Amino acid sequence: MKVITENHSFSTKGDCDIVNLSDVLYSSIETTKLKNGNVTVFVVGSTASISTIEYEPGLKKDLPEILEKFIPAGKKYHHNNTWGDHNGHAHLRSTLFGCSQTIPFVNGELLLGTWQQVILIDFDERPRTRKVVFQFIGE
Amino acid sequence: MKVITENHSFSTKGDCDIVNLSDVLYSSIETTKLKNGNVTVFVVGSTASISTIEYEPGLKKDLPEILEKFIPAGKKYHHNNTWGDHNGHAHLRSTLFGCSQTIPFVNGELLLGTWQQVILIDFDERPRTRKVVFQFIGE
Amino acid sequence: MKVITENHSFSTKGDCDIVNLSDVLYSSIETTKLKNGNVTVFVVGSTASISTIEYEPGLKKDLPEILEKFIPAGKKYHHNNTWGDHNGHAHLRSTLFGCSQTIPFVNGELLLGTWQQVILIDFDERPRTRKVVFQFIGE
Repeated sequence: MKVITENHSFSTKGDCDIVNLSDVLYSSIETTKLKNGNVTVFVVGSTASISTIEYEPGLKKDLPEILEKFIPAGKKYHHNNTWGDHNGHAHLRSTLFGCSQTIPFVNGELLLGTWQQVILIDFDERPRTRKVVFQFIGE
Repeated sequence: MKVITENHSFSTKGDCDIVNLSDVLYSSIETTKLKNGNVTVFVVGSTASISTIEYEPGLKKDLPEILEKFIPAGKKYHHNNTWGDHNGHAHLRSTLFGCSQTIPFVNGELLLGTWQQVILIDFDERPRTRKVVFQFIGE
Repeated sequence: MKVITENHSFSTKGDCDIVNLSDVLYSSIETTKLKNGNVTVFVVGSTASISTIEYEPGLKKDLPEILEKFIPAGKKYHHNNTWGDHNGHAHLRSTLFGCSQTIPFVNGELLLGTWQQVILIDFDERPRTRKVVFQFIGE
């Protein structure tokens, strides 16, 4: 059993930008030479999240639109009063979606579905460079 | 330390059907003979999720009803235009709830609460056979 | 590779009370002497959740307010009819936010961001004592 931790950086446009991490993740797992275990994908920061999605242009528009309905960007949040900033919605969305997902692999293959990509969602109101951790535990 | 990965299939009715995985999970952990560690429960696919709930008939009706309020099935989603299908809501709900949960066990016993069951939620619009992975890491 | 499981208790006020677990978590990881691996933070029970947030007074007010909009406490839930209680909203929120998060550490340091705290959210309608599990896997 080994633990292998990798730090990655991804540039985002902010405003609910969805970045597909799958290519980098598939390439990383090959490099580790691990056969059986899992990878925890974790985002550093309090205005972004990790999840999975069918990564296609329609859903990339649908997700921001539906979030705007129930956690709108334009609402006056107490958070914005605390710091004089404007990203209260980004914090709340990040808490709701969570910071980590754990994905099993067998024989060196991630057990993701054909249309199931691992994504970073950046809820912040501006472009950011995001640190994402891939941590593999396995043998 | 060992890694044991099991593939399971569950039939669902779709439309926010909630399937209680706990019995199969309790039986699986016994078979592994592992005493201390955790199990990652992971669903393959982009229109279903894993979570926990008190599995009783009331909440099985409440969850679909409340989701219908903020991610309604009948809305016109961009996703539906991309593929000509009608399950944009199912994809968005799956991204929101997430694909995995990790549950610790000690002395061969899962640390779930008395009323806390592990569930698969199928958000798709039709019955499906779902692949769910139980991956145990422990000793 | 070792597995170390700790049980902790936290008092909450209920009603979407947010408890910052970070200080106890940082102190626990030091005690384990583990250098590389991850910790799964898991809450026992079906009316509470684990997530991360920038722990400041504004967001502690924003989260309950926004949840009240889309999973209101005052709505008549089927769950409340089942048991004659009044916490259907607490169950639904718990299922939505999830029971666990997994956070990697390297050289004995959790890879959390500066403003990213690990939290317990108690959605129940009354004060509770909550069991939270920290399970460390690493070397």
